[in-house]
Amino acid sequence: MIRCDQTVAWTALQGHFEGHGRELDLREAFARDPARFEAFALQAPEVFADLSKNLWDLATRKLLLELARECALEDRRDAMFAGAPINTTEGRAVLHTALRAPRGFGPFSHEVHGVLDALLNYAEGIRDTTASGIRDVVNIGIGGSDLGPQMVVPALDAFAHPGLRFHFVSNVDGHDITPVLRKLKPAETLFIIASKTFTTQETMANAAVAREWFLAQGMAEADIARHFVGATTNLNAATAFGIHTTFGFWDWVGGRYSLWSAIGLPIALAVGSDHFRALLAGAHAMDRHFATAPLEANLPVQLGLLDVWYRNFHRFTSRSVAPYHQGLKRLPAYLQQLEMESNGKCVDFDGQPLTFGTSPVVWGEPGTNGQHAYFQMLHQGTDVIPVEFIAVKHPTHAHADLHAKALANCLAQAQALMRGKTTEAAAAEKAPTASPTLDARTVARHRSFPGNRPSSMLLLDQLNPRSLGALIAMYEHRVFTSGAVWGINSFDQWGVELGKALASDLLPRLVPGDQHGATTGLDASTAGLLRRLTA
Amino acid sequence: MIRCDQTVAWTALQGHFEGHGRELDLREAFARDPARFEAFALQAPEVFADLSKNLWDLATRKLLLELARECALEDRRDAMFAGAPINTTEGRAVLHTALRAPRGFGPFSHEVHGVLDALLNYAEGIRDTTASGIRDVVNIGIGGSDLGPQMVVPALDAFAHPGLRFHFVSNVDGHDITPVLRKLKPAETLFIIASKTFTTQETMANAAVAREWFLAQGMAEADIARHFVGATTNLNAATAFGIHTTFGFWDWVGGRYSLWSAIGLPIALAVGSDHFRALLAGAHAMDRHFATAPLEANLPVQLGLLDVWYRNFHRFTSRSVAPYHQGLKRLPAYLQQLEMESNGKCVDFDGQPLTFGTSPVVWGEPGTNGQHAYFQMLHQGTDVIPVEFIAVKHPTHAHADLHAKALANCLAQAQALMRGKTTEAAAAEKAPTASPTLDARTVARHRSFPGNRPSSMLLLDQLNPRSLGALIAMYEHRVFTSGAVWGINSFDQWGVELGKALASDLLPRLVPGDQHGATTGLDASTAGLLRRLTA
Repeated sequence: MIRCDQTVAWTALQGHFEGHGRELDLREAFARDPARFEAFALQAPEVFADLSKNLWDLATRKLLLELARECALEDRRDAMFAGAPINTTEGRAVLHTALRAPRGFGPFSHEVHGVLDALLNYAEGIRDTTASGIRDVVNIGIGGSDLGPQMVVPALDAFAHPGLRFHFVSNVDGHDITPVLRKLKPAETLFIIASKTFTTQETMANAAVAREWFLAQGMAEADIARHFVGATTNLNAATAFGIHTTFGFWDWVGGRYSLWSAIGLPIALAVGSDHFRALLAGAHAMDRHFATAPLEANLPVQLGLLDVWYRNFHRFTSRSVAPYHQGLKRLPAYLQQLEMESNGKCVDFDGQPLTFGTSPVVWGEPGTNGQHAYFQMLHQGTDVIPVEFIAVKHPTHAHADLHAKALANCLAQAQALMRGKTTEAAAAEKAPTASPTLDARTVARHRSFPGNRPSSMLLLDQLNPRSLGALIAMYEHRVFTSGAVWGINSFDQWGVELGKALASDLLPRLVPGDQHGATTGLDASTAGLLRRLTA
Repeated sequence: MIRCDQTVAWTALQGHFEGHGRELDLREAFARDPARFEAFALQAPEVFADLSKNLWDLATRKLLLELARECALEDRRDAMFAGAPINTTEGRAVLHTALRAPRGFGPFSHEVHGVLDALLNYAEGIRDTTASGIRDVVNIGIGGSDLGPQMVVPALDAFAHPGLRFHFVSNVDGHDITPVLRKLKPAETLFIIASKTFTTQETMANAAVAREWFLAQGMAEADIARHFVGATTNLNAATAFGIHTTFGFWDWVGGRYSLWSAIGLPIALAVGSDHFRALLAGAHAMDRHFATAPLEANLPVQLGLLDVWYRNFHRFTSRSVAPYHQGLKRLPAYLQQLEMESNGKCVDFDGQPLTFGTSPVVWGEPGTNGQHAYFQMLHQGTDVIPVEFIAVKHPTHAHADLHAKALANCLAQAQALMRGKTTEAAAAEKAPTASPTLDARTVARHRSFPGNRPSSMLLLDQLNPRSLGALIAMYEHRVFTSGAVWGINSFDQWGVELGKALASDLLPRLVPGDQHGATTGLDASTAGLLRRLTA
């Protein structure tokens, strides 16, 4: 397997970057090429992308596409869809795409649709709130068993059951579940215990608290079966807990790719069968686009290659995501797991150390909120941070005036980042605030902007189940693309193991018992902190 | 005013970094110096800090303190407390510290305590829910008029009125206010309109929607006075809106430093007078520490200098904040504004371009959630990202077992980042998952960790009003410190102006009317997007 930094295209990209790629000025590029917008516009299912305000040109893109081909991106992609064990360190296939394929299409269709039908049938039963009596749904899960549903449920608020409230408990810190339980009535509550193995430390600790609370509120052991449901494959442990209803999934579903599976139960409860199927259909449409569109017109591929360009040539270390839709407030947190857990690796498939950067930090808040917080730094800070804007043409609310303001701000921010403002232009304006101690020229310098800062714009017709499914699948395949170029196994997460093992060693030192306060074998810092915490 | 990069200490720091600072190995440093933990432990009011797991030694710290002195940090600090117009570009004093000083202490005490007494008196009236009839409080504000209360109210959940629910509406995107209004009964709702000028675009748009909804629900114009309150200094505009009760503040209170003022009304409503005063007292205690402790024992100073060390010598571009307390879930978003809006600047006081990095990206999620998301990258990614852990000794809930697990995880993550795991050690373990296609050595490489990754640990006895006040003030002064060294005006935000102006230009092109769809004067990308949005 060829390493990306050993390819002909990589060397050519280096030359291209040193030659003029580094110096590309977007304002000049637009002036030079009247067709630049059209050249970097891409229509994928449900998602239109304007990539023209990025620091690249047609030559850059051509070389990046050559890089993808040299790194055998298409072969790897096809291997994933075919169910080959591309998660080599765990010896597993990677088939979240099978979870959203139509009946009869692709691998495991029978199993997938069997669970899906049962899951949606169960969800519809609960959604009949007169019959079920359920008003509150509490999802207890962490990581992939939390972030997907936690992100999607508010995003699809306009399509959700008006009589159900959703709560997400993930943190082992008891300050998470405590205020949630305070609001609930046990007879009206459904707890979902979401853990593939039914052994996840945080989830089982919170499940035990929920179960104890439920019984302490006067409910009987026999009621557990109606008020707790499992998204798990460990039937024995779930049964011992008192759970009779479980929905399973498979070892080829990674945690951060699992919202399409039984882990999506909160989503199904919120929006119902038809909308859940639309979410899957949107993702499947993007799967087909990724699988079949030529690389030149393939949106996830181009986004992934742009990530490589920014990370390894421009050396940008983070990307800011700015969804101009409040429903997507948890998208950045979702993408942190999807991207940073997948590609935050420093060895390649063969375990050889990488000598170039991999996953950037992904972060952000919804616009326009971010404008009143950290956008100052995006515009006038010392670092260049590419921004990814997401906007919707049609809102799912009735306030057309507010929507126009949100759109105007979104377009304006992207425009401002690129355009900037010279000191001369700032000096020519009437400054809104007189400064008694500074001369006008100095004030103008404070009010100038470097500009030439890159951004992408992703446009949906509306945020609805289908478009959201497509958007999320787009991100999954984008991460696949950069991971494939970097030669990473994007589907394991060995980096979480060491902390888990050390926590097991520390726990008995923190609780009453023989080892309480013991500092044997600890470094002086951990020992000192432990002493303070157990004093 | 001397530029930090022109100082003797800066040059010495460069030599120190090139000499051995860059190569410092924490594991060796702890082995070499049994007193390292104590040497880098600091006790400030309410906050204990262990800074020993950072990539510095006593020589580094000595040089950083010299840098602070050469940059006249103490003079600048004293000028701030004395009310000098240190926000030079706006010609204003910076006196958020006056908002939390005891009666009779420091500048503007009479004015501050006058408003504070009235605010708390009003808050107690609403908190008498039997008399007031209020059950839901909706804060409408954005940026500094949102993030402080939005962060503090859940953090102090254990101290909050059990009969009041809080909602925060900030985004001009109508998907923010729409689901909030759906849950409310107008007769039981109090809307706070938080905008110093009563002209903030987002806030006034949402206030208008709230007002319209309120009347459409059958309430009368005369009811507005009882159900809307203003945190504003624009009495005329508030009165025209129908508001009779307003609480003002002063031009020396910056938006991102305003939770201590009338902007803190949601906090006062949640926790009441005594707890609000305790929040102020905690902040004041930290103010006195910052103002009077020698730099060698000054926590905000040391944190700020560490930020400079990491940013300008190690060239780290971001810092991850990991509060192991779910109540602090919005602290990272709060710090994004506090740090990045304050120090995300590329010119110095005199308007001269800076040639070194300033504010890093600040980001994070509560632990243990982060462990199941992006911690993979912190442990095994290609970049070094300093992590800031926050833990509490005593929880405000009754689940001691959960709290021990949270603490064990927090300590373990810091330990794991530093310790790492060699390929040899990984090879010696029994691998939990057999991999049919990879040999044992390769798998061990995937399961090894570089280690030597830095972190800080901030420890509170308990998260309560007083400690939270101290913690937030610590962050404010830390940002002051790095800003002072960098020679930045940390108190203006000119970088938000250009986008605002361009949004005003774009808005008429997006709404029905003469200019609808007009693309005159726009770059091809903005024009192309506008055409799609208005087609």
